[in-house]
Amino acid sequence: MSDTRTNAGLDNVSTFRKMAIWEETGERVITLLSAGNLATTQAVISLLEERGKAPADRSPSLLETPSLFQTARLVAETLREVIADQSDEGQLAESTFNATLIVGGQIAGSEPRLFMIYPEGNFIEAGSDTPFFQIGEIKYGRPILVRAYDAEMSFEEAMRLLIVSFDSTLKANLTVGGPFDFHFYETDSLQMGWHGRIESDDPYFQAVSKRWGDALKDALESLPNFQAPSYTDSVGED
Amino acid sequence: MSDTRTNAGLDNVSTFRKMAIWEETGERVITLLSAGNLATTQAVISLLEERGKAPADRSPSLLETPSLFQTARLVAETLREVIADQSDEGQLAESTFNATLIVGGQIAGSEPRLFMIYPEGNFIEAGSDTPFFQIGEIKYGRPILVRAYDAEMSFEEAMRLLIVSFDSTLKANLTVGGPFDFHFYETDSLQMGWHGRIESDDPYFQAVSKRWGDALKDALESLPNFQAPSYTDSVGED
Repeated sequence: MSDTRTNAGLDNVSTFRKMAIWEETGERVITLLSAGNLATTQAVISLLEERGKAPADRSPSLLETPSLFQTARLVAETLREVIADQSDEGQLAESTFNATLIVGGQIAGSEPRLFMIYPEGNFIEAGSDTPFFQIGEIKYGRPILVRAYDAEMSFEEAMRLLIVSFDSTLKANLTVGGPFDFHFYETDSLQMGWHGRIESDDPYFQAVSKRWGDALKDALESLPNFQAPSYTDSVGED
Repeated sequence: MSDTRTNAGLDNVSTFRKMAIWEETGERVITLLSAGNLATTQAVISLLEERGKAPADRSPSLLETPSLFQTARLVAETLREVIADQSDEGQLAESTFNATLIVGGQIAGSEPRLFMIYPEGNFIEAGSDTPFFQIGEIKYGRPILVRAYDAEMSFEEAMRLLIVSFDSTLKANLTVGGPFDFHFYETDSLQMGWHGRIESDDPYFQAVSKRWGDALKDALESLPNFQAPSYTDSVGED
Protein backbone atom coordinates (compact mmCIF):
# COMPACT_ATOMS: atom_id res chain seq x y z
CA MET A 1 0.00 0.00 0.00
CA SER A 2 1.23 3.50 -0.72
CA ASP A 3 0.04 6.99 0.02
CA THR A 4 0.00 9.70 -2.62
CA ARG A 5 1.20 12.80 -0.80
CA THR A 6 4.26 14.57 -2.10
CA ASN A 7 5.46 17.91 -0.94
CA ALA A 8 8.11 20.46 -1.66
CA GLY A 9 7.49 22.50 1.43
CA LEU A 10 4.23 22.64 3.29
CA ASP A 11 2.72 25.14 0.85
CA ASN A 12 3.30 22.89 -2.14
CA VAL A 13 1.47 19.64 -1.53
CA SER A 14 0.44 17.42 -4.42
CA THR A 15 -0.99 14.00 -5.10
CA PHE A 16 1.06 11.49 -7.09
CA ARG A 17 0.84 7.79 -7.50
CA LYS A 18 3.76 6.04 -5.77
CA MET A 19 2.85 2.53 -6.94
CA ALA A 20 3.48 1.03 -10.36
CA ILE A 21 2.37 -2.45 -11.44
CA TRP A 22 3.54 -4.41 -14.49
CA GLU A 23 1.68 -7.52 -15.58
CA GLU A 24 2.17 -10.18 -18.21
CA THR A 25 -0.75 -12.45 -17.41
CA GLY A 26 0.41 -16.00 -16.69
CA GLU A 27 4.06 -14.98 -16.87
CA ARG A 28 4.87 -12.27 -14.32
CA VAL A 29 3.51 -9.56 -12.04
CA ILE A 30 5.85 -6.88 -10.65
CA THR A 31 4.91 -4.10 -8.24
CA LEU A 32 7.16 -1.13 -7.51
CA LEU A 33 6.63 1.25 -4.57
CA SER A 34 8.66 4.41 -4.14
CA ALA A 35 9.53 6.94 -1.45
CA GLY A 36 11.73 9.99 -1.68
CA ASN A 37 12.42 12.49 -4.42
CA LEU A 38 9.60 12.39 -6.94
CA ALA A 39 11.74 13.45 -9.90
CA THR A 40 14.08 10.56 -9.14
CA THR A 41 11.36 7.93 -8.80
CA GLN A 42 9.53 9.12 -11.91
CA ALA A 43 12.78 9.05 -13.88
CA VAL A 44 13.43 5.49 -12.69
CA ILE A 45 10.01 4.34 -13.82
CA SER A 46 10.32 6.12 -17.17
CA LEU A 47 13.69 4.50 -17.79
CA LEU A 48 12.38 1.10 -16.79
CA GLU A 49 9.53 1.55 -19.26
CA GLU A 50 11.87 3.01 -21.90
CA ARG A 51 9.56 5.95 -22.28
CA GLY A 52 12.36 7.78 -24.03
CA LYS A 53 11.67 5.59 -27.07
CA ALA A 54 8.85 5.89 -29.56
CA PRO A 55 5.79 3.98 -28.31
CA ALA A 56 6.15 1.23 -30.91
CA ASP A 57 9.74 0.47 -29.87
CA ARG A 58 9.04 0.29 -26.18
CA SER A 59 9.61 -2.96 -24.40
CA PRO A 60 9.81 -2.51 -20.66
CA SER A 61 13.05 -4.23 -19.65
CA LEU A 62 11.31 -5.16 -16.41
CA LEU A 63 9.30 -7.69 -18.40
CA GLU A 64 12.40 -9.41 -19.75
CA THR A 65 14.46 -10.22 -16.66
CA PRO A 66 14.74 -13.97 -16.08
CA SER A 67 14.24 -13.75 -12.29
CA LEU A 68 13.02 -11.32 -9.68
CA PHE A 69 16.55 -11.07 -8.35
CA GLN A 70 17.58 -9.77 -11.78
CA THR A 71 14.57 -7.45 -11.72
CA ALA A 72 15.74 -6.01 -8.39
CA ARG A 73 19.26 -5.58 -9.78
CA LEU A 74 17.92 -3.79 -12.84
CA VAL A 75 15.77 -1.45 -10.75
CA ALA A 76 18.60 -0.81 -8.28
CA GLU A 77 21.05 -0.05 -11.06
CA THR A 78 18.57 2.32 -12.67
CA LEU A 79 17.94 4.08 -9.37
CA ARG A 80 21.64 4.53 -8.69
CA GLU A 81 22.25 5.89 -12.17
CA VAL A 82 19.41 8.40 -11.92
CA ILE A 83 20.66 9.68 -8.57
CA ALA A 84 24.25 9.88 -9.83
CA ASP A 85 23.15 11.71 -13.00
CA GLN A 86 21.15 14.30 -11.08
CA SER A 87 23.87 14.75 -8.49
CA ASP A 88 26.48 15.39 -11.17
CA GLU A 89 24.60 18.30 -12.57
CA GLY A 90 25.73 21.08 -10.36
CA GLN A 91 23.78 20.69 -7.15
CA LEU A 92 25.66 19.56 -4.09
CA ALA A 93 22.93 18.24 -1.81
CA GLU A 94 22.94 14.62 -2.92
CA SER A 95 20.35 13.64 -0.34
CA THR A 96 17.85 15.84 -2.16
CA PHE A 97 17.70 13.29 -4.95
CA ASN A 98 17.50 10.20 -2.82
CA ALA A 99 14.78 7.62 -3.13
CA THR A 100 14.09 4.18 -1.72
CA LEU A 101 12.10 1.51 -3.52
CA ILE A 102 10.25 -1.69 -2.79
CA VAL A 103 10.00 -4.24 -5.61
CA GLY A 104 7.92 -7.37 -5.29
CA GLY A 105 6.20 -9.89 -7.47
CA GLN A 106 6.48 -13.26 -9.08
CA ILE A 107 7.80 -14.68 -12.33
CA ALA A 108 6.42 -18.00 -13.59
CA GLY A 109 8.44 -20.93 -12.31
CA SER A 110 9.80 -19.10 -9.25
CA GLU A 111 8.58 -18.19 -5.79
CA PRO A 112 7.23 -14.68 -5.17
CA ARG A 113 9.96 -12.39 -3.84
CA LEU A 114 10.13 -8.97 -2.22
CA PHE A 115 13.09 -6.55 -2.18
CA MET A 116 13.87 -3.18 -0.65
CA ILE A 117 16.29 -1.09 -2.71
CA TYR A 118 18.47 1.64 -1.20
CA PRO A 119 19.57 4.83 -2.96
CA GLU A 120 23.10 3.43 -3.07
CA GLY A 121 21.85 0.72 -5.40
CA ASN A 122 22.12 -2.23 -3.04
CA PHE A 123 19.12 -4.13 -1.76
CA ILE A 124 17.83 -6.64 0.76
CA GLU A 125 15.21 -9.35 0.46
CA ALA A 126 12.27 -10.07 2.75
CA GLY A 127 12.16 -13.44 4.50
CA SER A 128 10.47 -15.07 7.44
CA ASP A 129 12.50 -12.95 9.90
CA THR A 130 11.77 -9.71 8.02
CA PRO A 131 8.43 -10.39 6.40
CA PHE A 132 7.54 -6.80 5.46
CA PHE A 133 9.24 -3.58 4.38
CA GLN A 134 8.35 0.05 4.92
CA ILE A 135 9.86 3.03 3.13
CA GLY A 136 9.45 6.77 3.59
CA GLU A 137 7.86 8.11 6.78
CA ILE A 138 7.84 4.74 8.50
CA LYS A 139 8.09 5.30 12.24
CA TYR A 140 4.58 6.35 13.28
CA GLY A 141 2.97 3.39 11.58
CA ARG A 142 5.54 0.81 12.60
CA PRO A 143 4.51 -0.15 16.17
CA ILE A 144 1.14 -1.54 15.08
CA LEU A 145 2.76 -3.50 12.25
CA VAL A 146 5.38 -4.95 14.58
CA ARG A 147 2.72 -5.99 17.10
CA ALA A 148 -0.14 -7.12 14.89
CA TYR A 149 1.36 -8.47 11.66
CA ASP A 150 0.80 -12.17 11.21
CA ALA A 151 1.83 -14.12 8.12
CA GLU A 152 -1.46 -16.05 8.33
CA MET A 153 -3.58 -12.91 7.87
CA SER A 154 -6.18 -12.83 5.11
CA PHE A 155 -5.98 -10.07 2.50
CA GLU A 156 -8.94 -8.36 4.22
CA GLU A 157 -7.20 -8.48 7.61
CA ALA A 158 -4.00 -7.17 6.08
CA MET A 159 -5.95 -4.33 4.49
CA ARG A 160 -7.42 -3.39 7.87
CA LEU A 161 -3.97 -3.45 9.46
CA LEU A 162 -2.47 -1.34 6.67
CA ILE A 163 -5.23 1.23 6.99
CA VAL A 164 -4.66 1.49 10.73
CA SER A 165 -0.91 1.81 10.20
CA PHE A 166 -1.29 4.55 7.60
CA ASP A 167 -3.93 6.27 9.70
CA SER A 168 -1.51 6.40 12.66
CA THR A 169 0.93 8.26 10.41
CA LEU A 170 -1.77 10.53 8.98
CA LYS A 171 -2.76 11.65 12.44
CA ALA A 172 0.80 12.68 13.29
CA ASN A 173 2.43 13.90 10.09
CA LEU A 174 1.40 16.12 7.21
CA THR A 175 3.81 14.57 4.71
CA VAL A 176 1.62 11.48 4.38
CA GLY A 177 -1.87 11.74 2.94
CA GLY A 178 -4.56 9.87 1.07
CA PRO A 179 -5.79 8.57 -1.23
CA PHE A 180 -4.02 5.23 -0.79
CA ASP A 181 -3.14 2.80 -3.56
CA PHE A 182 -3.13 -0.89 -2.74
CA HIS A 183 -2.18 -4.11 -4.47
CA PHE A 184 -2.63 -7.62 -3.10
CA TYR A 185 -0.95 -10.30 -5.18
CA GLU A 186 -2.04 -13.89 -4.74
CA THR A 187 0.84 -16.36 -4.93
CA ASP A 188 0.97 -18.33 -8.19
CA SER A 189 -1.98 -16.42 -9.69
CA LEU A 190 0.39 -14.63 -12.10
CA GLN A 191 -2.18 -11.94 -12.69
CA MET A 192 -2.53 -8.50 -11.20
CA GLY A 193 -5.50 -9.40 -9.04
CA TRP A 194 -6.92 -7.21 -6.33
CA HIS A 195 -5.75 -3.62 -6.52
CA GLY A 196 -7.23 -0.16 -6.45
CA ARG A 197 -7.38 3.12 -4.62
CA ILE A 198 -8.98 4.05 -1.31
CA GLU A 199 -10.02 7.68 -1.17
CA SER A 200 -9.60 9.63 2.06
CA ASP A 201 -13.39 9.97 2.32
CA ASP A 202 -13.96 6.25 1.73
CA PRO A 203 -16.62 5.12 4.27
CA TYR A 204 -14.57 2.12 5.43
CA PHE A 205 -11.43 4.18 5.86
CA GLN A 206 -13.39 6.79 7.80
CA ALA A 207 -15.02 4.16 9.99
CA VAL A 208 -11.70 2.50 10.84
CA SER A 209 -10.02 5.83 11.53
CA LYS A 210 -12.86 6.95 13.75
CA ARG A 211 -13.16 3.74 15.72
CA TRP A 212 -9.43 3.14 16.09
CA GLY A 213 -9.04 5.96 18.59
CA ASP A 214 -11.70 4.44 20.83
CA ALA A 215 -10.36 0.93 20.30
CA LEU A 216 -6.91 2.11 21.40
CA LYS A 217 -8.32 3.76 24.51
CA ASP A 218 -10.20 0.57 25.33
CA ALA A 219 -7.00 -1.44 24.80
CA LEU A 220 -5.20 0.88 27.20
CA GLU A 221 -8.01 0.52 29.74
CA SER A 222 -7.71 -3.26 29.52
CA LEU A 223 -4.13 -3.12 30.79
CA PRO A 224 -3.48 -3.53 34.51
CA ASN A 225 -3.65 -0.32 36.52
CA PHE A 226 -0.42 1.18 37.70
CA GLN A 227 -0.19 0.89 41.49
CA ALA A 228 1.35 4.12 42.69
CA PRO A 229 2.12 2.91 46.24
CA SER A 230 4.72 0.41 45.09
CA TYR A 231 6.77 3.37 43.85
CA THR A 232 6.32 5.77 46.73
CA ASP A 233 9.39 4.38 48.47
CA SER A 234 11.41 5.78 45.57
CA VAL A 235 10.39 9.32 46.49
CA GLY A 236 13.39 11.19 47.72
CA GLU A 237 15.70 8.48 46.45
CA ASP A 238 17.15 11.08 44.07
CA MET B 1 9.39 10.39 31.65
CA SER B 2 12.77 9.75 30.08
CA ASP B 3 14.68 6.72 28.96
CA THR B 4 18.36 6.27 29.78
CA ARG B 5 19.87 4.87 26.59
CA THR B 6 22.70 6.75 24.97
CA ASN B 7 24.77 5.48 22.15
CA ALA B 8 27.74 6.44 20.07
CA GLY B 9 27.24 3.72 17.50
CA LEU B 10 25.55 0.44 18.16
CA ASP B 11 28.62 -1.06 19.82
CA ASN B 12 28.83 1.70 22.41
CA VAL B 13 25.58 1.76 24.33
CA SER B 14 25.43 3.22 27.82
CA THR B 15 22.93 4.19 30.47
CA PHE B 16 22.69 7.83 31.57
CA ARG B 17 20.06 9.76 33.39
CA LYS B 18 18.33 12.25 31.10
CA MET B 19 16.19 13.84 33.79
CA ALA B 20 17.28 16.40 36.37
CA ILE B 21 15.05 17.80 39.11
CA TRP B 22 15.70 20.89 41.27
CA GLU B 23 13.59 21.51 44.34
CA GLU B 24 13.27 24.31 46.89
CA THR B 25 10.43 22.98 48.94
CA GLY B 26 7.56 25.45 49.10
CA GLU B 27 9.25 27.76 46.60
CA ARG B 28 9.91 25.98 43.31
CA VAL B 29 10.29 22.65 41.54
CA ILE B 30 11.97 22.49 38.12
CA THR B 31 12.41 19.40 35.95
CA LEU B 32 14.72 19.26 32.95
CA LEU B 33 14.62 16.51 30.33
CA SER B 34 17.20 16.22 27.57
CA ALA B 35 17.68 14.54 24.23
CA GLY B 36 20.62 14.70 21.89
CA ASN B 37 24.35 14.94 22.41
CA LEU B 38 25.19 13.79 25.92
CA ALA B 39 28.28 15.98 26.27
CA THR B 40 26.14 19.01 25.43
CA THR B 41 23.32 18.19 27.84
CA GLN B 42 25.73 17.34 30.68
CA ALA B 43 27.60 20.61 30.09
CA VAL B 44 24.31 22.53 30.21
CA ILE B 45 23.37 20.96 33.54
CA SER B 46 26.84 21.51 34.98
CA LEU B 47 26.73 25.17 33.98
CA LEU B 48 23.24 25.60 35.40
CA GLU B 49 24.46 24.15 38.67
CA GLU B 50 27.69 26.16 38.50
CA ARG B 51 29.66 23.00 39.08
CA GLY B 52 32.73 24.85 37.89
CA LYS B 53 32.79 26.64 41.24
CA ALA B 54 33.91 25.29 44.61
CA PRO B 55 31.03 23.46 46.32
CA ALA B 56 30.60 26.18 48.96
CA ASP B 57 30.17 28.93 46.36
CA ARG B 58 27.62 27.07 44.27
CA SER B 59 24.18 28.54 43.92
CA PRO B 60 22.30 27.03 41.01
CA SER B 61 21.11 30.01 38.99
CA LEU B 62 18.03 27.94 38.15
CA LEU B 63 16.88 28.50 41.72
CA GLU B 64 17.07 32.27 41.42
CA THR B 65 15.04 33.08 38.32
CA PRO B 66 11.90 35.07 39.16
CA SER B 67 9.65 33.14 36.76
CA LEU B 68 9.61 29.94 34.77
CA PHE B 69 9.77 31.98 31.59
CA GLN B 70 13.08 33.39 32.84
CA THR B 71 14.13 29.84 33.75
CA ALA B 72 13.45 28.71 30.20
CA ARG B 73 15.42 31.69 28.84
CA LEU B 74 18.35 30.87 31.11
CA VAL B 75 18.37 27.21 30.08
CA ALA B 76 17.97 28.11 26.40
CA GLU B 77 20.80 30.64 26.53
CA THR B 78 23.04 28.10 28.27
CA LEU B 79 22.22 25.45 25.69
CA ARG B 80 22.95 27.78 22.78
CA GLU B 81 26.28 28.84 24.32
CA VAL B 82 27.39 25.25 24.92
CA ILE B 83 26.58 24.27 21.34
CA ALA B 84 28.31 27.39 19.97
CA ASP B 85 31.39 26.78 22.13
CA GLN B 86 31.73 23.18 21.04
CA SER B 87 31.10 24.01 17.40
CA ASP B 88 33.79 26.70 17.43
CA GLU B 89 36.45 24.27 18.44
CA GLY B 90 37.44 22.83 15.14
CA GLN B 91 34.73 20.35 14.27
CA LEU B 92 32.43 21.25 11.43
CA ALA B 93 29.42 19.00 12.00
CA GLU B 94 27.35 21.30 14.15
CA SER B 95 24.49 18.86 14.31
CA THR B 96 26.71 16.48 16.24
CA PHE B 97 26.47 18.74 19.27
CA ASN B 98 22.76 19.42 19.07
CA ALA B 99 20.40 18.80 21.93
CA THR B 100 16.76 19.55 22.67
CA LEU B 101 15.39 20.12 26.17
CA ILE B 102 12.09 20.13 27.99
CA VAL B 103 11.83 22.35 31.08
CA GLY B 104 8.80 22.31 33.31
CA GLY B 105 7.82 23.13 36.85
CA GLN B 106 6.32 25.75 39.07
CA ILE B 107 7.52 28.74 41.07
CA ALA B 108 5.48 29.92 44.06
CA GLY B 109 2.91 32.53 43.05
CA SER B 110 2.73 31.43 39.39
CA GLU B 111 1.04 28.71 37.39
CA PRO B 112 3.01 25.58 36.44
CA ARG B 113 4.55 25.94 32.95
CA LEU B 114 6.18 23.65 30.43
CA PHE B 115 8.66 24.61 27.69
CA MET B 116 10.46 22.85 24.86
CA ILE B 117 13.85 24.38 24.03
CA TYR B 118 15.48 24.02 20.63
CA PRO B 119 19.24 23.84 19.96
CA GLU B 120 19.02 27.33 18.42
CA GLY B 121 18.11 28.68 21.84
CA ASN B 122 14.48 29.55 21.14
CA PHE B 123 11.59 27.78 22.81
CA ILE B 124 7.85 27.17 22.80
CA GLU B 125 5.39 26.71 25.63
CA ALA B 126 2.79 23.98 26.09
CA GLY B 127 -0.85 25.01 26.22
CA SER B 128 -4.27 23.47 25.84
CA ASP B 129 -3.71 22.96 22.08
CA THR B 130 -0.27 21.42 22.60
CA PRO B 131 -0.53 19.84 26.03
CA PHE B 132 2.56 17.64 25.86
CA PHE B 133 6.04 17.63 24.34
CA GLN B 134 8.27 14.84 23.13
CA ILE B 135 11.97 15.09 22.32
CA GLY B 136 14.44 12.63 20.84
CA GLU B 137 13.16 9.51 19.08
CA ILE B 138 9.52 10.62 19.16
CA LYS B 139 7.74 9.09 16.22
CA TYR B 140 7.12 5.47 17.22
CA GLY B 141 5.54 6.47 20.52
CA ARG B 142 3.52 9.39 19.22
CA PRO B 143 0.39 7.75 17.72
CA ILE B 144 -0.76 6.32 21.06
CA LEU B 145 -0.15 9.67 22.79
CA VAL B 146 -2.10 11.55 20.13
CA ARG B 147 -5.00 9.12 20.39
CA ALA B 148 -5.16 8.37 24.09
CA TYR B 149 -3.87 11.45 25.93
CA ASP B 150 -6.54 13.15 28.00
CA ALA B 151 -5.90 16.14 30.25
CA GLU B 152 -8.23 14.58 32.86
CA MET B 153 -6.04 11.48 33.26
CA SER B 154 -4.87 10.50 36.74
CA PHE B 155 -1.14 10.20 37.39
CA GLU B 156 -1.54 6.40 37.34
CA GLU B 157 -3.31 6.48 33.97
CA ALA B 158 -0.67 8.82 32.59
CA MET B 159 2.01 6.43 33.81
CA ARG B 160 0.34 3.54 32.00
CA LEU B 161 0.10 5.59 28.81
CA LEU B 162 3.74 6.68 29.04
CA ILE B 163 4.88 3.10 29.51
CA VAL B 164 2.92 1.98 26.46
CA SER B 165 4.32 4.87 24.42
CA PHE B 166 7.91 4.11 25.43
CA ASP B 167 7.35 0.40 24.91
CA SER B 168 6.18 1.05 21.34
CA THR B 169 9.50 2.78 20.71
CA LEU B 170 11.51 0.08 22.48
CA LYS B 171 10.01 -2.58 20.25
CA ALA B 172 11.07 -0.72 17.10
CA ASN B 173 14.32 1.09 17.87
CA LEU B 174 17.54 0.22 19.64
CA THR B 175 18.42 3.82 20.51
CA VAL B 176 15.79 3.92 23.25
CA GLY B 177 16.09 1.68 26.28
CA GLY B 178 15.23 1.31 29.94
CA PRO B 179 15.36 1.93 32.80
CA PHE B 180 12.94 4.86 32.67
CA ASP B 181 12.98 7.86 34.99
CA PHE B 182 9.69 9.52 35.81
CA HIS B 183 8.50 12.59 37.65
CA PHE B 184 4.90 13.59 38.30
CA TYR B 185 4.52 17.07 39.74
CA GLU B 186 1.28 17.95 41.48
CA THR B 187 0.17 21.53 40.77
CA ASP B 188 0.71 23.90 43.73
CA SER B 189 2.41 21.22 45.83
CA LEU B 190 5.77 22.99 45.40
CA GLN B 191 7.59 19.83 46.34
CA MET B 192 9.23 17.19 44.23
CA GLY B 193 6.54 14.60 44.88
CA TRP B 194 6.24 11.33 43.01
CA HIS B 195 9.34 10.41 41.07
CA GLY B 196 11.59 7.42 40.62
CA ARG B 197 12.92 4.88 38.19
CA ILE B 198 11.26 1.92 36.50
CA GLU B 199 13.70 -0.84 35.65
CA SER B 200 13.31 -2.77 32.42
CA ASP B 201 12.56 -5.92 34.43
CA ASP B 202 9.96 -4.18 36.59
CA PRO B 203 6.97 -6.58 36.86
CA TYR B 204 4.43 -3.88 35.98
CA PHE B 205 6.44 -2.74 32.97
CA GLN B 206 6.80 -6.33 31.83
CA ALA B 207 3.09 -7.02 32.30
CA VAL B 208 2.06 -3.94 30.30
CA SER B 209 4.54 -4.68 27.53
CA LYS B 210 3.40 -8.28 27.31
CA ARG B 211 -0.32 -7.58 27.34
CA TRP B 212 -0.16 -4.55 25.04
CA GLY B 213 0.54 -6.70 21.99
CA ASP B 214 -2.58 -8.77 22.65
CA ALA B 215 -4.62 -5.68 23.52
CA LEU B 216 -3.63 -4.11 20.20
CA LYS B 217 -4.59 -7.24 18.28
CA ASP B 218 -7.94 -7.29 20.07
CA ALA B 219 -8.42 -3.61 19.24
CA LEU B 220 -7.74 -4.38 15.59
CA GLU B 221 -10.19 -7.30 15.69
CA SER B 222 -12.85 -4.98 17.09
CA LEU B 223 -12.73 -2.82 13.97
CA PRO B 224 -15.16 -3.51 11.14
CA ASN B 225 -14.00 -6.10 8.61
CA PHE B 226 -12.86 -4.89 5.25
CA GLN B 227 -15.34 -5.98 2.59
CA ALA B 228 -13.30 -6.94 -0.42
CA PRO B 229 -16.23 -7.03 -2.90
CA SER B 230 -16.83 -3.30 -2.72
CA TYR B 231 -13.39 -2.79 -4.23
CA THR B 232 -13.46 -5.45 -6.92
CA ASP B 233 -14.89 -2.96 -9.41
CA SER B 234 -11.63 -1.04 -9.12
CA VAL B 235 -9.69 -4.02 -10.47
CA GLY B 236 -8.30 -3.14 -13.84
CA GLU B 237 -9.03 0.53 -13.34
CA ASP B 238 -5.26 1.07 -13.46
